[in-house]
Amino acid sequence: MGSTEDLDYPQIIVQYSNGFLVSKVMFTACELGVFDLLLESGKPLSSDAIAAHLGASTMGMKRLLDACVGLKLLAVETTQEGALYRNTEISSIYLTKSSPKSQYHIMMYYSNTVYLCWQYLADAVREGRNQYERAFGVSSKDPFGAMYRSDEEMLKFMAGQNSVWSICGRDVLAAFDLSPFTQIYDLGGGGGALAQECVSLYPNSTVTIYDLPKVVQVAREQFISPEEHQINFHEGDFFNDSIPEAELYILSKILHDWDDDKCKQLLAKVYKACKPGGGVLLVESLLNEDKSGPVETQLYSMNMLVQTEGKERTAAEYSKLLEAAGFGMVQVKRTGKLYDAVLGRK
Amino acid sequence: MGSTEDLDYPQIIVQYSNGFLVSKVMFTACELGVFDLLLESGKPLSSDAIAAHLGASTMGMKRLLDACVGLKLLAVETTQEGALYRNTEISSIYLTKSSPKSQYHIMMYYSNTVYLCWQYLADAVREGRNQYERAFGVSSKDPFGAMYRSDEEMLKFMAGQNSVWSICGRDVLAAFDLSPFTQIYDLGGGGGALAQECVSLYPNSTVTIYDLPKVVQVAREQFISPEEHQINFHEGDFFNDSIPEAELYILSKILHDWDDDKCKQLLAKVYKACKPGGGVLLVESLLNEDKSGPVETQLYSMNMLVQTEGKERTAAEYSKLLEAAGFGMVQVKRTGKLYDAVLGRK
Repeated sequence: MGSTEDLDYPQIIVQYSNGFLVSKVMFTACELGVFDLLLESGKPLSSDAIAAHLGASTMGMKRLLDACVGLKLLAVETTQEGALYRNTEISSIYLTKSSPKSQYHIMMYYSNTVYLCWQYLADAVREGRNQYERAFGVSSKDPFGAMYRSDEEMLKFMAGQNSVWSICGRDVLAAFDLSPFTQIYDLGGGGGALAQECVSLYPNSTVTIYDLPKVVQVAREQFISPEEHQINFHEGDFFNDSIPEAELYILSKILHDWDDDKCKQLLAKVYKACKPGGGVLLVESLLNEDKSGPVETQLYSMNMLVQTEGKERTAAEYSKLLEAAGFGMVQVKRTGKLYDAVLGRK
Repeated sequence: MGSTEDLDYPQIIVQYSNGFLVSKVMFTACELGVFDLLLESGKPLSSDAIAAHLGASTMGMKRLLDACVGLKLLAVETTQEGALYRNTEISSIYLTKSSPKSQYHIMMYYSNTVYLCWQYLADAVREGRNQYERAFGVSSKDPFGAMYRSDEEMLKFMAGQNSVWSICGRDVLAAFDLSPFTQIYDLGGGGGALAQECVSLYPNSTVTIYDLPKVVQVAREQFISPEEHQINFHEGDFFNDSIPEAELYILSKILHDWDDDKCKQLLAKVYKACKPGGGVLLVESLLNEDKSGPVETQLYSMNMLVQTEGKERTAAEYSKLLEAAGFGMVQVKRTGKLYDAVLGRK
């Protein structure tokens, strides 16, 4: 940045302008099933074969595949039969539906929900509030009412969050030794991928997913099998219903949805329910103390503006919220990935 | 790509996912006038002052500014009065409305038109055609009817194209010595920024902007002053009306809007009109011969799918089109920026 060369031609600005084109190429290749088909076929395929399999135009598919090659999401080799495409390793692992680390569902949530909300970013900044009303015609007063405006949307959101924990879950749970805590509540635990990581990492723990009744119902039906005996469920609204006693409460990506008052209200309730010697684990993307970065977290904080009533915070801000509720001995661990961990003790 | 570290955590996929967030942060800061205000004020300003000046929420503005800092579009310094924000050099040059190299108008076109069309990229790939109908409810059969669906949209498009030539125009015109050509027609010359670059670089030339009557009218009213004596206008539709004789025809970002048949039809007409010894200059973003890149051009080719009837092409493909129309001695110059130049001679 700032070199004479950059000033003569704004490469970085061109790159930022093209950002949404890059996102949409990747999202669309996922949505159409390009990476899944190439995984299943077990051999490189021509553009025409891919288009025919996926019911897409040959002209459109060829360009999509070439753009994926440019983005290194596909590789191409020229053979006697013409150009043949195959997944790169990173696409096989992260962009196919069947992979344990699949990011497919979060991509679909980004592509079909978040992308639309962000059309109204300027309005969000002007008004200082989320944009469900403009984007989807639903009231923005109750963000989770809006986010869960249909069973389909709720399922997409839950599956999307599960994708995130498949790549970030282990790190945030291993940030501190949580083995002393055996009775754990995951407040707003949704689809349960973090709970699954938790019982896998801490075999002596049981995790209760506390979430809205309709969320719990879908988690039971779609994500957690009855054989997973270490995972239980509790139906409730943690703002309005009681929170049972436990040794550890996990709040992963919960506080970032709410303003400071709501956070304090929730943490005070958690503190009251918490066993002495117990604790609370916040899993959030942490801003630098001067809010100068990381840029991903700054972008997510804008997304909190567009989609929720909350924001991303610094470690000091979370510590302050925890301490206001009575928690002490606050420890912070940055993981180097998207989500970090903050532990407070009662 | 492909290192063990990347495979353990898909940084590149996170970056691609966030692409649209990055685009929209930059577009929104432009739209709200952040860079203009900071240029005009001549001194760093607090977030609250910026929000108050621009009629935006303090909460939303603070986050937008911090995200711009993360993207190096703004710089921040902490003073006794708190955090003060100022433009980086690249933002002053390229993101303020008043700068000669301003990219403001193309950003607005991207943000408010292209971004919406790209919501339907999956449909475009499935159907192999542009998405005006889904995005804007206008027929997609006549792309320029759709692109110019209102005077406001047409003006935005023209201003946007002018922004592009303010950073790429000189390079494509200097790619070949065009001084032997004094009578030049810029077919589809729109807002005229390329014509202005041309008469500035080649002081003996006169350039006639040939475009639809309503485009010419706006170009006269808004972009080209009557004092610019070297620039003339010709109202017409180059597919259906006659093309006058000239020494050089510029077709900048014209052929990429159309399929091969339409391109051949247009080039044949240009060849017929062209003086012997004259030529045609194509200004386009060139794909590598194996279509493996550049990635920007691959993305723009997808945009041609979403917005037009055309595509981006390789140098060999353009040469073939030129030769089919009768042009010879085809020369190709890559500029290293977004747009390249191909010259054919009669």
